[in-house]
Amino acid sequence: MAQGFLCRRDTRWSEGRKKDLGWLYSKVPAAAAGVYTTNQFQAAPTKLTKQTVNLDHQLQAVVMNSANANSCTGPQGLVNAKTMQHLAAKKLGLTDQLVGVASTGIIGEPLPMDKITNGISQLSLTKSAAVTEAVLTTDKHPKSISVQFEFNNEPVIVTGFAKGSGMIHPKMATMLGFVTTDAKIDGVALQQLLNQQVDETFNQITVDGDTSTNDMVLVLANGMAQTSPVTADPAGYALFAAAFHQVLSFLAKSIAKDGEGATKLVEADVLHAYNHDEAQMVAKAIVGSNLVKAAIFGEDPNWGRLMGAIGQTKAHLDTNHVDVWLNDQPVVKDSQAYLIDPQVVASHLHENQVNVKVDLHNGKALGQAWGCDLTYQYVKINASYHN
Amino acid sequence: MAQGFLCRRDTRWSEGRKKDLGWLYSKVPAAAAGVYTTNQFQAAPTKLTKQTVNLDHQLQAVVMNSANANSCTGPQGLVNAKTMQHLAAKKLGLTDQLVGVASTGIIGEPLPMDKITNGISQLSLTKSAAVTEAVLTTDKHPKSISVQFEFNNEPVIVTGFAKGSGMIHPKMATMLGFVTTDAKIDGVALQQLLNQQVDETFNQITVDGDTSTNDMVLVLANGMAQTSPVTADPAGYALFAAAFHQVLSFLAKSIAKDGEGATKLVEADVLHAYNHDEAQMVAKAIVGSNLVKAAIFGEDPNWGRLMGAIGQTKAHLDTNHVDVWLNDQPVVKDSQAYLIDPQVVASHLHENQVNVKVDLHNGKALGQAWGCDLTYQYVKINASYHN
Repeated sequence: MAQGFLCRRDTRWSEGRKKDLGWLYSKVPAAAAGVYTTNQFQAAPTKLTKQTVNLDHQLQAVVMNSANANSCTGPQGLVNAKTMQHLAAKKLGLTDQLVGVASTGIIGEPLPMDKITNGISQLSLTKSAAVTEAVLTTDKHPKSISVQFEFNNEPVIVTGFAKGSGMIHPKMATMLGFVTTDAKIDGVALQQLLNQQVDETFNQITVDGDTSTNDMVLVLANGMAQTSPVTADPAGYALFAAAFHQVLSFLAKSIAKDGEGATKLVEADVLHAYNHDEAQMVAKAIVGSNLVKAAIFGEDPNWGRLMGAIGQTKAHLDTNHVDVWLNDQPVVKDSQAYLIDPQVVASHLHENQVNVKVDLHNGKALGQAWGCDLTYQYVKINASYHN
Repeated sequence: MAQGFLCRRDTRWSEGRKKDLGWLYSKVPAAAAGVYTTNQFQAAPTKLTKQTVNLDHQLQAVVMNSANANSCTGPQGLVNAKTMQHLAAKKLGLTDQLVGVASTGIIGEPLPMDKITNGISQLSLTKSAAVTEAVLTTDKHPKSISVQFEFNNEPVIVTGFAKGSGMIHPKMATMLGFVTTDAKIDGVALQQLLNQQVDETFNQITVDGDTSTNDMVLVLANGMAQTSPVTADPAGYALFAAAFHQVLSFLAKSIAKDGEGATKLVEADVLHAYNHDEAQMVAKAIVGSNLVKAAIFGEDPNWGRLMGAIGQTKAHLDTNHVDVWLNDQPVVKDSQAYLIDPQVVASHLHENQVNVKVDLHNGKALGQAWGCDLTYQYVKINASYHN
């Protein structure tokens, strides 16, 4: 477990809801990097945290709440986010600039500051737990991971945890990811690595194609491992990058798997695409298609849905030479049915993980994306979120 | 009713299914125009009809089937589509080049040519009906319309009918639209008008964001109205364009309203956008968002979903000055909650048509789009299509 990190999530601030205030703390200031929603209505806490990280790429703590997104809340929303930041900083004995803020929940309602204030006042480092032990999530699927590697004969740990749809606050589509590590790395290098890797991981998952106003991934590296900086040594950097990728990839897949109402993780692998962007585009089109998602939920061997999704993209296709596999069972060869009993195909869908492999025979690039099936439960959750 | 058009849809060709072969016939060759799916896996009949129309913009008949899309069926698929065209042409005493072919149904299965042949052999013009009387659709929602105007003191008629999801073949998302008119207009002018108007109508609807391999809108103008060409006179052209627009717009909305499993038509009106493309983009993002669609199904006054959908676009936004109305009830003012009892907002959603109006305060352009809610029934239909 990464040294020097503590966190907890058990303070109540909203009536009838548990574990809706959480915090993450490093014993020393940590290099920080973040990626934030591309939604133009960026929520106040997301804006504030982005500003704070961009100041000098340092954070020592993050305070977070669920049940209220503090989004579309106007100038007062930003004031409230700053107050939340300030209260947490004061309680932890830090400057405001060392504290990030994350919120998730209903959009458009003012943050109930009396409850937030009360919640933060109960925050106690002596009641904390280590990150991997007091994981923020309480869901059926694990969304935390810890990866260790050796560098300069010392163990270095990268730990991640995430809140996806159906977690901290069930029924919310907001994705929050937190990665902590005791690796020694400066904030700018960390930001660069995050930007690169997020494109292959978090940006390649979809639950319903909707981007929340509060999505955020934050990374804190406190450098407490007794090593030289990982960037000082190509081998060290490669080890760190690999561990970091393993963490981001695991979290991204976990979020997809635990999409609202989901019963199956869907993974799309695209082979031999014209270029990498197109490979990623086709993979994401597959996991993003409602028709594909509903068919997979129903374990319906209707591969025409897959062809529909692939053909909708602008990727270069040789439309007569596309092959498709469902969990390694060939179903399409040269863009036509690979003759097989539909019941056999259906049997391959009867698993909680469905892999769709597509060979475009049109280049050398690979792409991957992850999503989930579309279920009655998804509709139910989202038809009655507010009421 | 447009003179000289006949159609029928009642021949059986697949066991246990009714009305799965149809045809449309004009007593004289008609100027023809078409728009076709942008899906790269264009089905054989769609390819063939496009080629046929593009030869000389003339058609006299269209033969169509449901239950099998003849899509992803390889070279044999094109042979089968050509055979279907040829059999219908022979039966009607026409050259092949005057016959269009349209198919909808399951993707990837060979067209059962014995049944198609048998069905076409039963085709009889004496058993026909006029278009508006023998409308191709049998669904609960009307998807046919007839608009009349006077030109040169003569009545001119534009009639349209469409097959959307849940119609000729329930459970299919393919959209087929047919417009017939006795107006006198040449094929090139007709194609131009169709291209313009389809962008404002059919291209602004979405049921689930998935584009079928078989989508097609065909227009036949047989010129039997005793007038000069409508293009010879600006006033005449304006009248024709208006009638044509009314028909396309009605059909497009009807298809959205009758989306798979839908209970509500959702209309998005975007005001004061930076430009027309962006206005259309925002309108379509609203009706295309699963979260918005599920919330509307649940009559959930969760306008944050709308802000999420708007903010996801790349349109120019003044993120502090966006207003939103739900069925004329203000719900967002200056990107914040317009304070009102959620129950009042919910009451406005308790109708089978929901209008979302958005003022971007950022220009002069208007945009419109139509969609439907996302329901349990949608998932059910698409989870079990094939089985």
